[in-house]
Amino acid sequence: MNFKLVFKLAGKTLLVAAACMVLPLLVTLLYREDPMPFLSAMGITALAGLLLSLLRADTRFNSREGFFSAGLIWLLVGFFGALPFQFSGYFPSFVDCLFESISGFTTTGASILTAVELLPKGILFWRSFIHWLGGMGILVLTIALLPSLGARTLHVMKAESPGPIISKLVPKSSQSSKILYGIYLVLTVLVILALRAAGMDWFDSVTHAFATAGTGGFSTRNLSVGAYQSPAVEIVLGIAMLLFSVNFALYFLILCGKWRQALKSDELRFFASVVGGSVLLIACNIQSMYGSFLTSLRHAFFQVSSIISTTGFSSVDFDLWPEFSRALLVILMFCGACAGSTGGGVKCSRVLLLFKCIGREIRQILHPRSVNVVRLDGRVVDEKILHTVMIFLGSYMLITFGATLLVALDNFSFGTTFTAVVACIGNIGPGLELVGPMGNFSIFSPLTKLVLSLCMIVGRLEVFPILVLFSKNAWQRV
Amino acid sequence: MNFKLVFKLAGKTLLVAAACMVLPLLVTLLYREDPMPFLSAMGITALAGLLLSLLRADTRFNSREGFFSAGLIWLLVGFFGALPFQFSGYFPSFVDCLFESISGFTTTGASILTAVELLPKGILFWRSFIHWLGGMGILVLTIALLPSLGARTLHVMKAESPGPIISKLVPKSSQSSKILYGIYLVLTVLVILALRAAGMDWFDSVTHAFATAGTGGFSTRNLSVGAYQSPAVEIVLGIAMLLFSVNFALYFLILCGKWRQALKSDELRFFASVVGGSVLLIACNIQSMYGSFLTSLRHAFFQVSSIISTTGFSSVDFDLWPEFSRALLVILMFCGACAGSTGGGVKCSRVLLLFKCIGREIRQILHPRSVNVVRLDGRVVDEKILHTVMIFLGSYMLITFGATLLVALDNFSFGTTFTAVVACIGNIGPGLELVGPMGNFSIFSPLTKLVLSLCMIVGRLEVFPILVLFSKNAWQRV
Repeated sequence: MNFKLVFKLAGKTLLVAAACMVLPLLVTLLYREDPMPFLSAMGITALAGLLLSLLRADTRFNSREGFFSAGLIWLLVGFFGALPFQFSGYFPSFVDCLFESISGFTTTGASILTAVELLPKGILFWRSFIHWLGGMGILVLTIALLPSLGARTLHVMKAESPGPIISKLVPKSSQSSKILYGIYLVLTVLVILALRAAGMDWFDSVTHAFATAGTGGFSTRNLSVGAYQSPAVEIVLGIAMLLFSVNFALYFLILCGKWRQALKSDELRFFASVVGGSVLLIACNIQSMYGSFLTSLRHAFFQVSSIISTTGFSSVDFDLWPEFSRALLVILMFCGACAGSTGGGVKCSRVLLLFKCIGREIRQILHPRSVNVVRLDGRVVDEKILHTVMIFLGSYMLITFGATLLVALDNFSFGTTFTAVVACIGNIGPGLELVGPMGNFSIFSPLTKLVLSLCMIVGRLEVFPILVLFSKNAWQRV
Repeated sequence: MNFKLVFKLAGKTLLVAAACMVLPLLVTLLYREDPMPFLSAMGITALAGLLLSLLRADTRFNSREGFFSAGLIWLLVGFFGALPFQFSGYFPSFVDCLFESISGFTTTGASILTAVELLPKGILFWRSFIHWLGGMGILVLTIALLPSLGARTLHVMKAESPGPIISKLVPKSSQSSKILYGIYLVLTVLVILALRAAGMDWFDSVTHAFATAGTGGFSTRNLSVGAYQSPAVEIVLGIAMLLFSVNFALYFLILCGKWRQALKSDELRFFASVVGGSVLLIACNIQSMYGSFLTSLRHAFFQVSSIISTTGFSSVDFDLWPEFSRALLVILMFCGACAGSTGGGVKCSRVLLLFKCIGREIRQILHPRSVNVVRLDGRVVDEKILHTVMIFLGSYMLITFGATLLVALDNFSFGTTFTAVVACIGNIGPGLELVGPMGNFSIFSPLTKLVLSLCMIVGRLEVFPILVLFSKNAWQRV
């Protein structure tokens, strides 16, 4: 393991993180709030980043360094990102700050705050802005800004970007990440404008657009999106959340004029059918609660979009819905968005590959001698990738069960315990019962908050970087 | 698909099932009860069996026929096994009879009855006896008794026996199944004697031994094993349940004098560590409820043994235990017993293989160029088998989620809904909350009872036979 380069990369990333604190600092100045929390946090983060980035390292950087540094750097960024919260004095303890920061960067949106409307604008802005940074990946951003680092971008992207297969847009991967961030930025601006047009003020438009783009889910209101009581806002956000759940490579195809190829994506079609089917089923299931079918449809659409995109906004308290709708939402939490998007969960492409593998298994039993391959978008999927996808799904479930056990030590009901873990590892935010849209995560013990924070990073980085980071072998000098 | 031979095999199996009804018939005569339910059920089953077994068929019988017939025949046996319940008049509806029968044959032990002590002895005996039949497999029994059938035993055993790899004890597989049934019978007799010695009467000893041997869990008492208030009974059953959770191939090794080889089994060691670890953790967790650590240890041992063996007896109401213990029990429900035993769940060997594959994945990231294989008991596991194991785990989870959604239509809490499905697909019996050890499955709608019945068969046959049975391709004439 080339530890020096890993730490050097960590240092550069912390410098980028410190630079990112300029924006909330400007917000505090704009709203005449105390800038000290951000100034101190910036100072500490920049100092730590500077010290680490002074390390001299050779350029050996392979997949192992990629996974290891992703795991390590996300833990560090979560830690330093918590400093503004800590210095603001609005949070009960540092564990709470850490939870909130990791929840932000991993685009989970689970909060330990009971009343967000009391917070200063700067802190509210930082909460939303770290969603935006974490959505596309702060490591990818660092490498896009500082390509001269020597760390090979492909390995970092492999470890930080979601999905079983990395779509290379252009041959050079630092170029790819620039294009991705460009699309991301443009889409975010469009959402800001649309929200403003739907009647939100500028501050709320920007923060909610950040939270939507990163599929995070922190709101500036206690009642989340429900506070606006505005169908227009719900529809804009509902559509926007879905847009950020789609593989960004498809937008690149569209930009290149390859509309047809983009729309033919197997994953996109699967995602669209799951969304469409779920919205209809839930709308029928909740109709008796809302009278008109159109209102039910609107709530069902918003909530399905919010959960499958793993954003976690709520327009109503879906914990009060019938069990069928609640169970369906929990299943969507596992499924999550498309690969290559800012969303979490296990990703639609992996679920689709699982279905295809099951189909192949049955064909193999029926016709043992025939040759059977699994195809995605018309191309044969490598057996090695299929195997890794299945191992990923298995470890995702194992970690979910393991974390459930630890969270169970807090002695809440099975529904609360299990869905808290599912909502954190899937980077959604709210679960059911006590951690439902009207509840929050302040009820848990510090240990549980740390376990859930780790779950969020495990989910955001798709398991393996954290497993690599905690494996004994990784720490051996080779 | 050689439908004729499949139906002929179904006919022979029904004849065996009809013959098995002689035993409960004798019980009704012994206790001077009405023999008519069993006489009528026997008549109908034998007639159906006779008609089907008269079919003339060629001997083409491959893996596809093996899987298809396992799926079909288990549905048929569940149906005809429900007839005595139906004719007894003690069950509210035929769906309830079907649920109870399938729960019996699949060794689940989930019941829709609220007061079993009211039932006649003949019916109680039949409930326990079908556990025994289903535990080792009624198709395997049929083939052991009627080897001349032409159906190739290996394919039937592959489809009906639990676990990723079939251990062939001797080269001829009809011989293997005779040896397995021999060991099974001897162990069952030993448990009967031990229970009698522990103070149960003969009838309860026999029925509980059947339920233990099949890892079923139907008791003749409303309070299950808790009714006896006897530590001796609990310890005998606790040990016996574990014995029936072990791969029977190991007993064969021991019979051949290969003690060491048997004790070196990776799966056995994994199973033993999971049991040991869980007992200790739960004993510490529940100690405050029972005062003495020894009492907690006894209850923890009994309940862990009951759940991981997927029997489902209860000595206390573990639904009242702290959430940590309850969550751990739910996780054990997924894990289940060893391959090649009468227990359910996904089987320890598959969980162990998943762990080993995850370890390999990490090694591969750290050292991409090294050659990595997965070993079990010192032997390299074929990649094809690993892939099938992972697909199995994936489909098991998918079916669990799908069934949860359907059961959620009944609008019970998430804990009840989810654990009902987990307890049925894992062939355990009780879950948590309303389906906990003091609850039962009568609360559910007929649709849910049918869904859960199908889950039990899916779990008992390990998914693929039912998927094959319901696949369009299987019904094409080739």
